[in-house]
Amino acid sequence: MNLRITWVLAAALVAAQAGEAARPATSNVMNAQFPAVSEDGRATFRLRAPNAARVQLQPGGSDNGLGLQPVDLLKGADGIWTVTTAPALPGFHYYWFNVDGLQVNDPGSQTFFGWARDTSGIEIPSPREDFYEPRDVPHGQIRIEWYLSKTTGQWRRAFVYTPPGYDKDSRARFPVLYLQHGAGENETGWSRQGRANFILDNLIAAKAAVPMIVVMDHGYATPRTPPSGEAAASGRGAGVLAPSAFERVVVDDLIPAIDTRYRTRADREHRAMAGLSMGSGQALQIALRNLDTFSWLGLFSGAAPSGDLATAYNGTLANGAEFSRRVHLVFMGAGSAEARITTAIDASRTALETRAIRNVVTFTSEGTSHEWQTWRRCLNAFAPRLFR
Amino acid sequence: MNLRITWVLAAALVAAQAGEAARPATSNVMNAQFPAVSEDGRATFRLRAPNAARVQLQPGGSDNGLGLQPVDLLKGADGIWTVTTAPALPGFHYYWFNVDGLQVNDPGSQTFFGWARDTSGIEIPSPREDFYEPRDVPHGQIRIEWYLSKTTGQWRRAFVYTPPGYDKDSRARFPVLYLQHGAGENETGWSRQGRANFILDNLIAAKAAVPMIVVMDHGYATPRTPPSGEAAASGRGAGVLAPSAFERVVVDDLIPAIDTRYRTRADREHRAMAGLSMGSGQALQIALRNLDTFSWLGLFSGAAPSGDLATAYNGTLANGAEFSRRVHLVFMGAGSAEARITTAIDASRTALETRAIRNVVTFTSEGTSHEWQTWRRCLNAFAPRLFR
Repeated sequence: MNLRITWVLAAALVAAQAGEAARPATSNVMNAQFPAVSEDGRATFRLRAPNAARVQLQPGGSDNGLGLQPVDLLKGADGIWTVTTAPALPGFHYYWFNVDGLQVNDPGSQTFFGWARDTSGIEIPSPREDFYEPRDVPHGQIRIEWYLSKTTGQWRRAFVYTPPGYDKDSRARFPVLYLQHGAGENETGWSRQGRANFILDNLIAAKAAVPMIVVMDHGYATPRTPPSGEAAASGRGAGVLAPSAFERVVVDDLIPAIDTRYRTRADREHRAMAGLSMGSGQALQIALRNLDTFSWLGLFSGAAPSGDLATAYNGTLANGAEFSRRVHLVFMGAGSAEARITTAIDASRTALETRAIRNVVTFTSEGTSHEWQTWRRCLNAFAPRLFR
Repeated sequence: MNLRITWVLAAALVAAQAGEAARPATSNVMNAQFPAVSEDGRATFRLRAPNAARVQLQPGGSDNGLGLQPVDLLKGADGIWTVTTAPALPGFHYYWFNVDGLQVNDPGSQTFFGWARDTSGIEIPSPREDFYEPRDVPHGQIRIEWYLSKTTGQWRRAFVYTPPGYDKDSRARFPVLYLQHGAGENETGWSRQGRANFILDNLIAAKAAVPMIVVMDHGYATPRTPPSGEAAASGRGAGVLAPSAFERVVVDDLIPAIDTRYRTRADREHRAMAGLSMGSGQALQIALRNLDTFSWLGLFSGAAPSGDLATAYNGTLANGAEFSRRVHLVFMGAGSAEARITTAIDASRTALETRAIRNVVTFTSEGTSHEWQTWRRCLNAFAPRLFR
């Protein structure tokens, strides 16, 4: 009996014990039978570690849908450790193993860039939604775009979604959404963990969103020359509106490269910026400082305009009527389980509307927290509102 | 002093001890200071594992340029293990750590799909060659292409290189090279480990190769319906020419999708197939079985036509003059340090030429073995000979 067959039988045994079929997670590497997911969302993890004294499953974050605390695996006589979790929330969840205190990836899982390193992740299917799964509809492409940044002096890599049919009509031009990842993630996050391409494919096929280009850049930048004066501030906090190195990359390097290489509608009316968590702070900052460049804004699980809106953000929000004329959408979304952020969003919405700022849309992802399922749903609710 | 600064100082200390500057490897994740590479190619690895009894650096393969045997790291009082290797060969090398017998990725390294899982890798700069580095020349794109396979019933992912200027002239059409990875790797290998896009960018900018599309597919396929009769043979061995499921994917699913979605020159004269190691066997098999589809062939570190050429390969090679008329190039390359393969290539060349088969080109990568630096050099020598 070869190793492969042994694993298949082991998976079948676990499934039998669970009383239903457990299938290898779609996030596994090829041929890996574990982790496996049962129909009710319970996940079974295994690790062969004969010499270890303790092995734990560590959810990547205390609120990422896989559980709140590390879970001990039990050691079998064969040196294989195993555990089956309680039903996990649907969606993508970072995790790793703690083996005698050492963080170890699961060799059965693909890695996904999060937590500032390549990290294991598991996809738990959702029984009620498939808006982010590939369907038999026309598919756009993700294009890996390298560009030389004047700001950093280095080659940078952006992932660019082009909608279905982009290559068919060489005269058609498209609006552009600039879409940013969270802290410790990178330009691969929105297409791999976020499934942004499939979300857009499905929305466009249903005519629920207009065809658009989506640019997903690397949200970190170190300037070639040390910044001085105003530019020395990193500018992540609410109300702090000094230019960051990343803002200079976006405005001076990335947007010109995209407008040169793609058939964009290269004006503010057809340019949006959005991001999740850290990326929402970047989107807010960069859009408000560059209202000649952007006119649509999406903030997922992070920034929400706050403070004295008469003076904060360089006074951009002081004149609500003027702001509403220029900015066509301020979308703020979060998971219902991240109460601090939903509370901030509600307060921000009230403050914005008190200043006669229209075009504010809020969105809540039911049952999810600071995790990719929230951001997939945010994108799915945000994109249909863009560019029309 | 924050963590980042501590690491920077630690790296500087190691560099001072080494008597020269050691820089973080370009294959590291962002902000990771280790592994670090000195100018003479020595690599310093570190892992924080206070509870471990033994930590080893394991080269991914006995001949991948990083060394032949596992190397012990030494434990410091701070629980950080470290080792500096002898000068390593230039190029990309898979590796991992063995921590008390458990295979563990290096959290400082990006992961690369090899060994049937996401694996750490280190890039050692070459003092004498930069043909695979990004230069300030026009860059093509890597496009991530999803297609639904009739053969497997599943969505598959191919990486597709389009040459610089592909989008500029909507009437230009391009020849296509189908380029396959090795065993345990996947469709990401040729662009990430292999730098195929930068190699083509640089060749095309120098007018050393004609602009071409390069399609890099996932070289594994499980048929939706069990094969029967002839198709039941997997067909990897020399002389065995039954269709594999992967052949059916390439011919029935992939090529039609590429020819539909891209501006290809969709005929045998403008279609090549090549691969490395396992992929070279696939290229040989698929090209020889489908000479109405392919007319250029590249075999890197693997297959070399052997046996009784009068009867092997379904008799395709029996008539040398006819074969030479149809097949414009049989390129066979390998590293000088993989003697078994270079010997086989030399014998194959003699046998082919004895049968009056022209258009045979052999190539040797000096000093390298069964590793990506060999295959980068093979592609760099092969691509200029295509389609002209």
